[in-house]
Amino acid sequence: MHFASDNWAGAHPKIAESLSRHAGGFAAAYGTSALDKEVAQTFNEIFEREVTVFFVGTGTAANSLAQAAIAKPGGVTFAHREAHLIEDEGGAPGFLTGGARFQSVDGTTGLMHIDNLKAAIKGFAPGNVHVGQPMGVSITQSSEIGTLYELSEIAAISTLCRENGLPLHMDGARFANALVSLGCSPADMTWRQGVDILSFGGTKNGCWCAEALVFMDPAHAREMPFIRKRSAQLFSKSRFIAAQFEAYFADGLWLELAAHANEMATRLTNRVEASDELRLAWQPRANEIFAIMSNDMSAKLHAAGAVFYDWKPPHSERNLVGENETLVRLVTSFATSLKEIDRFGDLIA
Amino acid sequence: MHFASDNWAGAHPKIAESLSRHAGGFAAAYGTSALDKEVAQTFNEIFEREVTVFFVGTGTAANSLAQAAIAKPGGVTFAHREAHLIEDEGGAPGFLTGGARFQSVDGTTGLMHIDNLKAAIKGFAPGNVHVGQPMGVSITQSSEIGTLYELSEIAAISTLCRENGLPLHMDGARFANALVSLGCSPADMTWRQGVDILSFGGTKNGCWCAEALVFMDPAHAREMPFIRKRSAQLFSKSRFIAAQFEAYFADGLWLELAAHANEMATRLTNRVEASDELRLAWQPRANEIFAIMSNDMSAKLHAAGAVFYDWKPPHSERNLVGENETLVRLVTSFATSLKEIDRFGDLIA
Amino acid sequence: MHFASDNWAGAHPKIAESLSRHAGGFAAAYGTSALDKEVAQTFNEIFEREVTVFFVGTGTAANSLAQAAIAKPGGVTFAHREAHLIEDEGGAPGFLTGGARFQSVDGTTGLMHIDNLKAAIKGFAPGNVHVGQPMGVSITQSSEIGTLYELSEIAAISTLCRENGLPLHMDGARFANALVSLGCSPADMTWRQGVDILSFGGTKNGCWCAEALVFMDPAHAREMPFIRKRSAQLFSKSRFIAAQFEAYFADGLWLELAAHANEMATRLTNRVEASDELRLAWQPRANEIFAIMSNDMSAKLHAAGAVFYDWKPPHSERNLVGENETLVRLVTSFATSLKEIDRFGDLIA
Amino acid sequence: MHFASDNWAGAHPKIAESLSRHAGGFAAAYGTSALDKEVAQTFNEIFEREVTVFFVGTGTAANSLAQAAIAKPGGVTFAHREAHLIEDEGGAPGFLTGGARFQSVDGTTGLMHIDNLKAAIKGFAPGNVHVGQPMGVSITQSSEIGTLYELSEIAAISTLCRENGLPLHMDGARFANALVSLGCSPADMTWRQGVDILSFGGTKNGCWCAEALVFMDPAHAREMPFIRKRSAQLFSKSRFIAAQFEAYFADGLWLELAAHANEMATRLTNRVEASDELRLAWQPRANEIFAIMSNDMSAKLHAAGAVFYDWKPPHSERNLVGENETLVRLVTSFATSLKEIDRFGDLIA
Repeated sequence: MHFASDNWAGAHPKIAESLSRHAGGFAAAYGTSALDKEVAQTFNEIFEREVTVFFVGTGTAANSLAQAAIAKPGGVTFAHREAHLIEDEGGAPGFLTGGARFQSVDGTTGLMHIDNLKAAIKGFAPGNVHVGQPMGVSITQSSEIGTLYELSEIAAISTLCRENGLPLHMDGARFANALVSLGCSPADMTWRQGVDILSFGGTKNGCWCAEALVFMDPAHAREMPFIRKRSAQLFSKSRFIAAQFEAYFADGLWLELAAHANEMATRLTNRVEASDELRLAWQPRANEIFAIMSNDMSAKLHAAGAVFYDWKPPHSERNLVGENETLVRLVTSFATSLKEIDRFGDLIA
Repeated sequence: MHFASDNWAGAHPKIAESLSRHAGGFAAAYGTSALDKEVAQTFNEIFEREVTVFFVGTGTAANSLAQAAIAKPGGVTFAHREAHLIEDEGGAPGFLTGGARFQSVDGTTGLMHIDNLKAAIKGFAPGNVHVGQPMGVSITQSSEIGTLYELSEIAAISTLCRENGLPLHMDGARFANALVSLGCSPADMTWRQGVDILSFGGTKNGCWCAEALVFMDPAHAREMPFIRKRSAQLFSKSRFIAAQFEAYFADGLWLELAAHANEMATRLTNRVEASDELRLAWQPRANEIFAIMSNDMSAKLHAAGAVFYDWKPPHSERNLVGENETLVRLVTSFATSLKEIDRFGDLIA
Repeated sequence: MHFASDNWAGAHPKIAESLSRHAGGFAAAYGTSALDKEVAQTFNEIFEREVTVFFVGTGTAANSLAQAAIAKPGGVTFAHREAHLIEDEGGAPGFLTGGARFQSVDGTTGLMHIDNLKAAIKGFAPGNVHVGQPMGVSITQSSEIGTLYELSEIAAISTLCRENGLPLHMDGARFANALVSLGCSPADMTWRQGVDILSFGGTKNGCWCAEALVFMDPAHAREMPFIRKRSAQLFSKSRFIAAQFEAYFADGLWLELAAHANEMATRLTNRVEASDELRLAWQPRANEIFAIMSNDMSAKLHAAGAVFYDWKPPHSERNLVGENETLVRLVTSFATSLKEIDRFGDLIA
Repeated sequence: MHFASDNWAGAHPKIAESLSRHAGGFAAAYGTSALDKEVAQTFNEIFEREVTVFFVGTGTAANSLAQAAIAKPGGVTFAHREAHLIEDEGGAPGFLTGGARFQSVDGTTGLMHIDNLKAAIKGFAPGNVHVGQPMGVSITQSSEIGTLYELSEIAAISTLCRENGLPLHMDGARFANALVSLGCSPADMTWRQGVDILSFGGTKNGCWCAEALVFMDPAHAREMPFIRKRSAQLFSKSRFIAAQFEAYFADGLWLELAAHANEMATRLTNRVEASDELRLAWQPRANEIFAIMSNDMSAKLHAAGAVFYDWKPPHSERNLVGENETLVRLVTSFATSLKEIDRFGDLIA
């Protein structure tokens, strides 16, 4: 019963196979091999436009370098209060941008509310050197707590961004889970709604280590080759990432894996809803379920071998959790089995 | 005939197999899995002491974070004029240390001369804020140009370091090649000669992406967990690096691969020496050969399908290359075949 | 009627005289002159202990370098949501620390509430690299909005700091105003309550440009000579700052000037309280008064030549200001005259 | 006999007077006062074009922020091996640019030789992320060792810069001394020869603390307001710098002071040349004289009360100084008296 995180799973067999298949032979280093170029081309097809792609090693790197690409002196990026790049990346976004500031914006269920974003941006009058200058907006899809922005909400945020001359970044560590849940295309969920830069995550959805920084507009990518190198994120045998993405995209494996993870999440949700002992903290939309239970139940589940994290309630939902209660996070992945769901379901029945 | 670089080779089959073998199952993320711990233990055995090990994604990351671990405000590290961290890492060491300076020290055949190092350090009087403060010394073993420090030379440098309170870092991107060439143990080539921090490279010697930062003294590693995270070098599925190192160390694979690469270099050296058309720029000691030939010969070899780089002569050897001559670098690896050597040898005969 | 800011005043005549008096003659540069040393000694006397003093050019520099002195990789300093180093220094604290993060802590009337601070620190479990590591706490005395921490409140915060191994920094841009208001000694308001590092401001209280970074514990100051130099804050003719401080401290000028500013603030407060048109937003404790008035009244006062800023209400007091109302800030200084107060008082009567 | 440095002198009486004159009254802070604007206008007149001026606190700040204005990821600026921003600013240029690298270029008598500069730039092939990307060139006028670039030499360097798309920065810590020596106009010595950005120093020539960053092209200055603020170089009572510059420029005081310093240097040069005990290391062109003498003579002069620094010979002149000899630097300033020169001259006669 492994629900700790989708990064506790290893790699899908097809990812490992691809790495074996490409292990032989010589290929140009530093992202210039034929395979690297083929995969870049696949990204173009998937996004239905010419995009500029850079492989990097971690999601934190993708997010941080996205910010570095748009960084300005005294720059400020707006993101949800619980955004990964504010709360969970150990200062990497600040460090790798050379000191940018990330301004919290509130909103319930892990999503920035547009009015709050508007008010936050308004606090930075153009040219006011004391407060700094806005440099971008970042949203997370699916969010840190398993919820989703509707396409129309993304469009509304990007409109606000355009009005203020700010590029819009999407942290897509769980991009595929969001995509499958919304049932739209990658283009629909990104540039058609005005997203400029995407952290495209493969690691949480079955790869070993495959993250890509995707620029819809090459202008934002101009300095990225140098930014990536100075940040030590240029891999010599870059084809080991390319090989993962090749298998990831082949025959729609990535969507299949995300669909499986989401399906497992739906089944788990059903079991939570059917239980008298647990309640959903909010409605799950992707592959993360947040449930509230008694401390006793949490202890009992841990003792029975369920692996999951107790979770600090988000600021805006901090009143949902009562005394002697625990909020827990349950994450499903490509590797989650129905058997695990059933066993967990029986324990909470 | 692939002699461009040892990072043009892919991965050794056993490395790929290990990745496949470990692909299944769930394991704690961020370097805390059982496999991560086992491999850390293997490092202890290999170095015959308790070391502190951090996996990172690239050699540039290893070098840069080694420097970040010892960084001081206004800090200066001394390294050979052609050291990778000065010349080939796109400013990463300066950036990831928050602005450290890397001071060139001269020396022939890619090796710092101790008298020059002594003079360089002397230029920084303690407490002189204008010049900055020494923070460390870095040597490369084997060097950028395929030469080696003798153990006694390392010891002499480390003695000078001790006298000046400076930690000694070794860039071991080609650590195994040096080790096999000197025929000594990892402990002999590092801490027994006073090396404090090691960039231990696996990528160039048959791994996909496996680099480790090895601290002989845990005091230098104290802040490294946070330094690594803020530099976006903490991998969630860290066991994909651990799995590579597991196979790398099993049954001495790493030494076998380096021995092969060196052996191929020796055979290639013999062919160069036997040729009237080429001459060695200096005596190779590991898996890199630098040879001087006419521009015509270089063109002919390229045309015949040999893949290698023309090389800018090192500063201290800049007079070795005559007019209408080219210095070229020929690198062998675990994947180099005798057939390639022979074909190349026939071309230059 | 100049109430825009205490930094709109120039310099007190005695400050200018001192600069003229010391203009002649030769003196060692970079802070090593006899005058520099004498003034450092005066700081010892004023603080009743051996302190380590560094002159810097701006309050932003003092705050930022104080943070740099205690910076850690992935480091986080806690400060009030409206603290100058979070809201008003254009990212300098983040930049000059190499990427530290400043975590907002709430509290009414510009003061961190200790329970909020406790909860904020608790969010950073030791060793959790994802969230980062606490590196310090910063309080502002007097606060951004003219209020004060009582000595017992400072002591309570410093106790919490000690429990968590965190140094306590005080932003004393208006140190003298706070001191005079509390009627205590510099030692009482700082190290006797556990303050470790002080940004000691002279500029807002009658100097041209005189700020000092005061370390109660020399251990925190160890790297400061190099930190100051790399931040371009080491002045060659450092005695021009020393000369200001000499006059500032002579015969208690600094306390006299602050007492005057505070006295003017009290008189202005009285006029506000006596007016039917205005009300105090909260009780002023130093030389800044925040008052709420109708938009019409604000316009009228501006039109009559009063110079002051409309102010964005602090987050915790955002409901104090009604529709068609404006919050304004009125700052007095050493240069404020009773005549100005009276004229303003008559306008609002 | 004060020849240690021109920053050992205090301030000229007219500078101090100006500060006294402007001490009263209220004025807008942060560089927006009427006086700030008037002085900015004076810069336009002096440079015979619209320039963009930013006051900063130190020469190190001026140089470092000039580099920050043109910084690129992985960026490299070329400067003479002994340039202040390489050797004497404690890492500030690297730190305040977020990690730029400064590449040494050789040349005799403190001046970059254009062929060396050409070769150095050539080492950085466009788009090669490993070596980094050129971002600018910096020259020092007058140089660190009292020599001068001829106008034609500046023009040749700027032509090379243009060919490579690199802005040209001039470190003008001793701008006035160079100007007076060449007998040309500020426009002639800067933008008419292709200089883009100037560190304009006032401190060494009679001010307390007055440095200006002068941009010939406003495009380079676009982000400077934010760069200056985040670097803690925006002064609240900015008019204290403006007031110095007002007096500095009035009635050509600045040229008069520099002419005096240079004249004193000429007289001192004459005495050195007349002496059998000393010899000039190279021909002085501004207000710094470098002379070689026996160690005994150096000791004798120090003992007699002469204040000056023994100097480390520049790399390219390291063979000028024999055994038992010392190279010394003698600096004159606005405050140097003929009496001092004569006394020194008598001692060496």
